[in-house]
Amino acid sequence: MESGQVQTSTIYQPVQEDLLQVEECLRQVGEVAQPYLAGPLKHILARSGKRLRPALCLLVGKCYDYNLEVLVPVATGVELLHTATLVHDDSVDNALVRRGVPTINSLWGSGVAVLVGDYLFAKAASLVSAVKIPRVMSLFAQTLMAISSGELAQNFAAFNVSISRHQYFERIGQKTASLFALATEAGAVVSQAPEADIKAFRDYGYSLGLAFQIIDDILDYTGQETELGKPTGNDLSQGTITLPAIIFGESHPQPNPVTAFVEHRDDQAYLERAVAAVCHPAIIEKCYAIAGSFCSQACAALPPIPAPVRHSLVELCHLVLKRQK
Amino acid sequence: MESGQVQTSTIYQPVQEDLLQVEECLRQVGEVAQPYLAGPLKHILARSGKRLRPALCLLVGKCYDYNLEVLVPVATGVELLHTATLVHDDSVDNALVRRGVPTINSLWGSGVAVLVGDYLFAKAASLVSAVKIPRVMSLFAQTLMAISSGELAQNFAAFNVSISRHQYFERIGQKTASLFALATEAGAVVSQAPEADIKAFRDYGYSLGLAFQIIDDILDYTGQETELGKPTGNDLSQGTITLPAIIFGESHPQPNPVTAFVEHRDDQAYLERAVAAVCHPAIIEKCYAIAGSFCSQACAALPPIPAPVRHSLVELCHLVLKRQK
Repeated sequence: MESGQVQTSTIYQPVQEDLLQVEECLRQVGEVAQPYLAGPLKHILARSGKRLRPALCLLVGKCYDYNLEVLVPVATGVELLHTATLVHDDSVDNALVRRGVPTINSLWGSGVAVLVGDYLFAKAASLVSAVKIPRVMSLFAQTLMAISSGELAQNFAAFNVSISRHQYFERIGQKTASLFALATEAGAVVSQAPEADIKAFRDYGYSLGLAFQIIDDILDYTGQETELGKPTGNDLSQGTITLPAIIFGESHPQPNPVTAFVEHRDDQAYLERAVAAVCHPAIIEKCYAIAGSFCSQACAALPPIPAPVRHSLVELCHLVLKRQK
Repeated sequence: MESGQVQTSTIYQPVQEDLLQVEECLRQVGEVAQPYLAGPLKHILARSGKRLRPALCLLVGKCYDYNLEVLVPVATGVELLHTATLVHDDSVDNALVRRGVPTINSLWGSGVAVLVGDYLFAKAASLVSAVKIPRVMSLFAQTLMAISSGELAQNFAAFNVSISRHQYFERIGQKTASLFALATEAGAVVSQAPEADIKAFRDYGYSLGLAFQIIDDILDYTGQETELGKPTGNDLSQGTITLPAIIFGESHPQPNPVTAFVEHRDDQAYLERAVAAVCHPAIIEKCYAIAGSFCSQACAALPPIPAPVRHSLVELCHLVLKRQK
């Protein structure tokens, strides 16, 4: 789910050095004595993600009382919460590979994945509770409730082709945008931003998160297997109906290639026909336009802040729209 | 894992009415709009456990500044954390039944069990963070780290017959006693007990928890399938080497019926021979004596407190030792 080839160094510039502290904090999480815990933790934390969520947290903090003693553990907690949910998702989906790297469940079994995910949740809670700001701990708890609800909603709606755009936005809001909103809102809260700015940053993070997930869902149809680290059309093959398939369905009365696939879900030929149909340029263009409008909403939500951070947060929206894997 | 037939009403008497508030709080957790979440939540929260951990939390609070506005959410949080770990354990072990009731993974699949467990962790964290005492939130986080580490240790040591008593006590300390210690320590902290009493109650809860798990592990060998809600010898069949098998191993050089079973773990006849050998009265008696000594340690740890609560907490130790299922 991380943005790949587009350069983040310019965008992260205001907090680049401080992100190394987050990286060090993440490394220390894997430094435990028990080998059965250290192995999976080091494997999952070493993955060279872009650390987009911690970067957001620090960038927001940069606008106010920039105190790394609280921002670093909170930003690290956000990344750990994100990582824990990925570990559990991969276990739930029986995914063998994520971004080209074997998943914990594929290497150590699904039981270990469940328990390591639990450990990561707890470690995130431990870091965040140590900063002693109950409001931030509540935000973390609410976010995990939203993410698990969203994942359950997705699970429940598998192969349901009648899902609406509204239901889709609600679901990705819970499962993805809530974590982006946590990163920006928590960054604002611990840096003592005014209430209006906290709300504005929450809105920025939420809209950016929606755009991020829409792009992810587009790339699942249009990307190359080698770049995605998973087969094209993976979402549809799992029964997850995302924006491209929803928009396709709006203009193609049933039966259509997508509903035909749902009727013959074990037949690869039906899957390929459905993916090809959904991948029509007009559909993909509509999806990009919707992602773009969420990015515009994100930028419009930004409160008055110093130019360098504003520049980074606006550029981040462009980067999310442009990413190719 | 709950105590069954022995009457708890006398023991719970000092907090009996207030426990109804915990019960109501647990009921409300299942009152969510989404049917895919409400179904599993109501199923798992309706289970008529003895609510031993919330009772401990309230009983400890009764000795100091007894404020139900903080004690009820914290006691409910302890029960939710306990419930979440059971849901995940059953998913990890592919257990179909717990105490005679179908597990979430057996009814809705292991993916739903993982996500519902996550939701319960988050709900526990949400309730506890709302009382705004960071120290208690830290205790919850540390406890979940201990539980998941303990479960991983057990997973890692499956079918390892050379595990020592020391390793066993450490493992059950993490996976079971830590939650009892959380219940008593958190009850003391939120009720503003003196530091020495907080430490004493933590020790009481931890020792009681060790005794509780040892009895659980004895009953797995000696109990009736109809009472346990699972087959006798279930732990050994899963490769979990518990105190009875460890004590058996100490006085029976290898090869013995337990090591023979490990070599032929798919053969029911080897399992039955191993269970019969471990079930020797002298071995079971030794295990009960060890559980009894932990109960004595628990009682010895109790700080000076009012007689009715002291009586309840001492009786609770007796109840734990006497339980039959």
